[in-house]
This record gives sequence, C-alpha cells and structure tokens, in this order.
Amino acid sequence: MSMKTIRVQADLLATNKQAAAAIRGELRRRGILCVNLLSSPGSGKTTLLEALADRLKGRFRMAVIEGDIETERDAERIRKKGIPAWQITTGGACHLEARMIGKILGEIPAEIDFLFIENVGNLVCPASYDLGEEVRCVLLSSPEGDDKPAKYPQAFLSADCLILTKTDLLPHLPFDPARAAAEASAIKPGLKVFSVSALLGDGIEALADHFVEALERMRSGRA
Amino acid sequence: MSMKTIRVQADLLATNKQAAAAIRGELRRRGILCVNLLSSPGSGKTTLLEALADRLKGRFRMAVIEGDIETERDAERIRKKGIPAWQITTGGACHLEARMIGKILGEIPAEIDFLFIENVGNLVCPASYDLGEEVRCVLLSSPEGDDKPAKYPQAFLSADCLILTKTDLLPHLPFDPARAAAEASAIKPGLKVFSVSALLGDGIEALADHFVEALERMRSGRA
Repeated sequence: MSMKTIRVQADLLATNKQAAAAIRGELRRRGILCVNLLSSPGSGKTTLLEALADRLKGRFRMAVIEGDIETERDAERIRKKGIPAWQITTGGACHLEARMIGKILGEIPAEIDFLFIENVGNLVCPASYDLGEEVRCVLLSSPEGDDKPAKYPQAFLSADCLILTKTDLLPHLPFDPARAAAEASAIKPGLKVFSVSALLGDGIEALADHFVEALERMRSGRA
Repeated sequence: MSMKTIRVQADLLATNKQAAAAIRGELRRRGILCVNLLSSPGSGKTTLLEALADRLKGRFRMAVIEGDIETERDAERIRKKGIPAWQITTGGACHLEARMIGKILGEIPAEIDFLFIENVGNLVCPASYDLGEEVRCVLLSSPEGDDKPAKYPQAFLSADCLILTKTDLLPHLPFDPARAAAEASAIKPGLKVFSVSALLGDGIEALADHFVEALERMRSGRA
C-alpha cells in the first residue's frame, strides 16, 4: 500500500473509533449488551442467533442487526423468530462500520436487553472495525479446519470469545477442537472458548448464560 | 466511503489492472496457464490443489503461489507433493495483488504448464483484483450453505468456473448443489460448474481435464 492509502485508512479507522465509542456509551446508558459476531461466510452466525433467540425467549429480549453485501435473507430468518431485525446491505463493502450501526440505534426499542450484530461474512476485514460492542465473538466452524487461527490472527486477537460451531459434523471431519482452541488461545491469552451445535442445541445454554452474566456485569457497572 | 477513499481505491485498481495485463502477457508467451482460486477460509483450496497435483502428475507440471495473511503452512503442504510453491504472507492485507505475483514470476521454471494461485481466504475482497490469471475459479464448500452466491455476488460474477467442494459431506448437510449452481448461474450466465470431493477424489478428473483443455486452447491461440 502507498503512504497515501495508509493515511486514508488510518483516518477512516480513527473516525470509526470515535463513532464506536459514542455507540458504546449510549448502549451502556440504555442497559443494552451489544455483541459483535465475526466469522467466515457460512460459519453459522445466523443459525446461532436463531438458537439463542429460542434459548433467551421469555426471559430476555433481543434485537439483531444483520450485515451482508447483498440480500435481506438473514434479517428475514431472524424476524421469523419474532425478533426485531435490521438488515444493512453494504453493496460491496467487506465489513460493517460504526456509523452504519449508529444510524439504526434510534430505532431499537427501549426494552431490549441484547443487541447482536452479525457482521459481513469475512474473517479478515471486520476485525479492524470496532462497532461499539461490549463483547466480540469470533466463530470458527469445524469444516473450516483447526489451522485457521494462526492464518487469520487479527480476528482471534481482537475477540473476547471463540465459538466453535457445527460440532455435529465432528464425526465426519479431521477437525481437532482442542488444537483450534489452543492455537487461538496462544494468539489471545484468556480467550473464552465455547463449542456449540446450533442444529442440535448443544452448548447454547452455556453460551447464553455467558451473555446474561456479561449483561448483568455491565448493568452493575462492573464491566 | 469518502470521495478521497474512493479515488485512492480507483487508483489502486487501475495500477493493479496494468500489472495484471503484463503478467497475463508474459504467462501466455511462456505457455503457462494461470488459475486464480477464490473462496472463503476453509473451503478446501489447498486440499483441491493437492488432489490436482496427484491427478496431473507425470503428464503436466504445476507450480503454486499461496496467499495467506500469516504462516507458511499451505506452501509446505504443497511442497510435500513435490510441487514448487511460493508463499506470500500479506501481513494483514485481505487479498493478493498483481504486483505480488509479478515479483515471483521470474523464479517460475520454464517447464511449468500450470500456475495455480491460491488467494487469501476471503469471498469478498480478492474478487476486485485481477492477478493476470487466464481462468478464475470460485470455490463454495457444502457446509457454507447454498445461499451464498446472492450474498457475495462479485466473487461469482467475476469467476469463469464454480467448484462446489466437500461433496462427501452432503449426506450430513441441508446443502442443495442444484440451488447453489442455479443461483450462481443467474449471477453469471455461462458459468461452468464442477462438483468435487478432494478427499474421495470425486470430480477431480473432470476438473483437471477442463484445465488441460484451457491450456491447449491458450497455447493454440484460441483463448
């Protein structure tokens, strides 16, 4: 990259950081825990959100912002669960930015407890953009391979928790969950690791509990 | 994006296009067919190259350029097959650019028939960068879901062929190959579609034959 490109990129990131800080402040005041989900295309972000919707139902209210390059498909899937969802279509851009989230913030109902943001499917670019979230999760599905953390380090370094998805496929794959977890933890010491099969419902309770604890911590000012 | 960002981006793409045209010219003169492989992380690009190496062995010579953000892992896997391989680590950048390929071109032996480039695992950004290839293939693995073409249209629009991978997992997944192929073909009419299981060797012969025909067409000046 040329020096000019690097400078424009640095300006963009600084502007994004300011917008993200404002979003984080507003969501904390409103008592809404924001979770940013990052992963490759097809790692199971939407299916995980559907499973969390079922698990949190009746106890907590959630809202979802869906990021995609094109189509309203993911927001439509979430709305079928009775969850308010906003679709951002970036029209080519490879990641969400804080200003896109900022435009939706005013529409999110007061009674919401959790705001989940499903980023554009991309294990690279979204890692550099703070969206004002309280918790960042990176998903890694078993078919992608246990060698991915070291190959895409920024996503894992910037995450608070790693969610290994599609564990129902493990019998058919060479994926070693312990290797993936160890490699990710070497990049980001203290990373929390969860294993789930959203299809079977395995591990969803533990993950939902983790988000509920984070919500309570934030609301009590211990975040 | 700001106007300034858009202008810098346009400059970058124009510079890349020039470099790519020079590479394409040189590779045609040398009679080497260049194939650029694009996909999400973990869609099976490296495993496909290993299977193609076995299939082409003894009849044709191939070389591989591996693109990754970090690690030499993929080049090491290819070298174990006795294939010359160069690893480009982009150190954070989300795609390969033609100038990166240009630097390696002089090192590629004269007797090579096929130069395969495995791009950084990313279904978005690499689509905008011509690397001087003759054939561009996009891979979509069955666990990623058959709804991906419309969500990531540029990769499919810019490709000459679609390779549906990991067909051995189809019995365990809701993936519909016909839906994926139809959706991709609606974006790019005339797209050639192949289905492979690199693990079982299924479909590798037809794909290898396709590349051999493209090589012969290029060498006879009918490209």
